[in-house]
Amino acid sequence: METRLSSATKEVLISDEQPTVIIGERINPTGKKKLTTALQAGDLELVRQEAIAQVQAGADILDINVSAGGVDAVSLLPRAVEIIQETVNVPLCLDSDSPAALEAAIKVYQGKPLVSSVTGQNDSLKKILPLVRECGTTVIGLTIDDEGIPNDSERRVAIARKIVKQAEAQGVPREDVIIDCLALTVGSDYRAGLVTIEAMRKVKAELGVNLTLGVSNVSFGLPERGLLNGTFLAIAIAAGLNCAIVDAVQLRQIILATDLILGHDRFAMRYIKAYRQRYKE
Amino acid sequence: METRLSSATKEVLISDEQPTVIIGERINPTGKKKLTTALQAGDLELVRQEAIAQVQAGADILDINVSAGGVDAVSLLPRAVEIIQETVNVPLCLDSDSPAALEAAIKVYQGKPLVSSVTGQNDSLKKILPLVRECGTTVIGLTIDDEGIPNDSERRVAIARKIVKQAEAQGVPREDVIIDCLALTVGSDYRAGLVTIEAMRKVKAELGVNLTLGVSNVSFGLPERGLLNGTFLAIAIAAGLNCAIVDAVQLRQIILATDLILGHDRFAMRYIKAYRQRYKE
Repeated sequence: METRLSSATKEVLISDEQPTVIIGERINPTGKKKLTTALQAGDLELVRQEAIAQVQAGADILDINVSAGGVDAVSLLPRAVEIIQETVNVPLCLDSDSPAALEAAIKVYQGKPLVSSVTGQNDSLKKILPLVRECGTTVIGLTIDDEGIPNDSERRVAIARKIVKQAEAQGVPREDVIIDCLALTVGSDYRAGLVTIEAMRKVKAELGVNLTLGVSNVSFGLPERGLLNGTFLAIAIAAGLNCAIVDAVQLRQIILATDLILGHDRFAMRYIKAYRQRYKE
Repeated sequence: METRLSSATKEVLISDEQPTVIIGERINPTGKKKLTTALQAGDLELVRQEAIAQVQAGADILDINVSAGGVDAVSLLPRAVEIIQETVNVPLCLDSDSPAALEAAIKVYQGKPLVSSVTGQNDSLKKILPLVRECGTTVIGLTIDDEGIPNDSERRVAIARKIVKQAEAQGVPREDVIIDCLALTVGSDYRAGLVTIEAMRKVKAELGVNLTLGVSNVSFGLPERGLLNGTFLAIAIAAGLNCAIVDAVQLRQIILATDLILGHDRFAMRYIKAYRQRYKE
């Protein structure tokens, strides 16, 4: 199963045969006061700088989320897309709760973007899938429905199945759906990490689709989050994760080490090249 | 499947239901000049100090290997066992290529030790298994035979199967055999890590035995070995590793993080306790 994304000049392939793809997560105002204030003022300079930093750190794709209180995402998301596409050449993940903002951003996007996201909720499926089909984008499917995020792996697999089936029924090919089995913190439920890993293995085995995951929720409320995030990331990649939504600055080394361990780095070339670059700086 | 080891006063349980057990690997002169010289002079003070350091760092079991050129292991291994059992209370893994040294060490050992090791070679099976049966110890089975370490997972599984079958045929119960699928460096074969992980998954699925692994070989010849060892360790635990042969000082944090991610640490108690202890120091 191969998912293809592109910018105007660059294509990114996502599949079990490829090294792990990094989706840089930093362009998102949640919990970032300075970025929130800038976005509320319509100022996209911080977004531009963060895009450069994440790509320099090895991000293959950038997640772009500009939603905050007082921000009109329908006008700001497309503006952010234009500025980022003028600045860096990687494909983008257009990330918004608003279908209108997603549609406006897709219209100005050059290439084939990733759209974040559709869920197992009927309302979401009805609004997002036609947009994905008409615009020929790819889409992230979140394993959440009207009852929330299931606390067992079987029900997350059931939601993934529903999303993939409905996508195919509406003409969106399976390879354009990337499933996110969702991470919750092990700080409040000690089985949370295991449930996500089990769901990923089952979705991969049954549906064969590519998998994405934002890893950092797993460590919410716990000390030494980098240690937990890195460990979870390595285990998730071994369980079939294809594209990780992470801070590229913090976690690229773990991803390169994991790809080397799992046979995705012949002659250790990517690992050693990154090591040399770090020590030249 | 539950393996029970003991010292005179302490029992260690190894099973899929337990947190990962740490076998401290530092008492081994290979590549350590100062320790080699001390052992050649019959001086066990360094061994005693290392035993204390590894147990303080969280080792649940200590591997004891005193073999070096010019050392009579048949007399030195039992002496080392006596001194270490006077110093710390954890069970020991008696590690020697010499069946006579293993037998002498077992004789003075108080409790039920782990014996390292038997291989798939007929000569090894013939010499080690009767000793294990007569003395009621547990044993590590290495997936190597007269042709060396196979470079594919299927043949490693075949050796594991042979060891377990022969052990049972000779009256050694399956739970007293712990299989080591062996790690080779990804620096010379990019599939080496994957083959080990695949072999572990298959041995666990088919034979149900507990698994051990010395992880550090995986990074031989590469930069930032700690990063690769830690990543490999997390993936190996997720693949079924029950007891890791590691430097407890370097890798205990990764093991605690992995156990938390994989649902072996209710309320994150072990993880948080270790974090607090580190920052009290």
